[in-house]
Amino acid sequence: MKRSASAMWNGDLKSGKGTISTDSRVLSDTQYSFSTRFENGVGTNPEELIAAAHAGCFSMALSAQLAEAGLVAQSISTKATVTLEKAGGGFAITAVHLDLTRVQKLPEHESPP
Amino acid sequence: MKRSASAMWNGDLKSGKGTISTDSRVLSDTQYSFSTRFENGVGTNPEELIAAAHAGCFSMALSAQLAEAGLVAQSISTKATVTLEKAGGGFAITAVHLDLTRVQKLPEHESPP
Repeated sequence: MKRSASAMWNGDLKSGKGTISTDSRVLSDTQYSFSTRFENGVGTNPEELIAAAHAGCFSMALSAQLAEAGLVAQSISTKATVTLEKAGGGFAITAVHLDLTRVQKLPEHESPP
Repeated sequence: MKRSASAMWNGDLKSGKGTISTDSRVLSDTQYSFSTRFENGVGTNPEELIAAAHAGCFSMALSAQLAEAGLVAQSISTKATVTLEKAGGGFAITAVHLDLTRVQKLPEHESPP
């Protein structure tokens, strides 16, 4: 199976800007720039997309693992945090931290412990 | 620098469904499911998000490399295609193919060669 996405970049690194689009069009000429990547500007950046992919894959895969143990997940919430750091002459992703939350709805007649 | 995203999955692998959200909110409770991941259903999937991250990072990084050579990119377009294949007991990304297109606008008095 093949999945694709495209990115267009115009101009130089710091003053240029770009757009990213995916096959599904959930990203459709979505803006990104030096400031959205390195300076907390508004817009997307490759690192949060990797975090999104990791969180999405993990939640789904865990449901499959639980099924093998005879369990059905009511709700699995995963937050992925990607750390981008200067390394050598450039930048590198040095960690992806996953926080997993189980959200369990209790029957109405039960109170949370 | 830290970038994060979250995913929520409800139910089992095949009939369940999930949502993905990024810090920037370009993905905001965006739907994904078994069918959008493995059966070409409508919606996003982790693999196209990795393709988006790779294409976005590559286009931007190439502009920086060109700048070191004294060149400013007018427009760099990169398409990333992620191949997901069965491997062992699960799935694995076995390739990411990049297609790079240079879009050059000629002055009005010049014709394309």
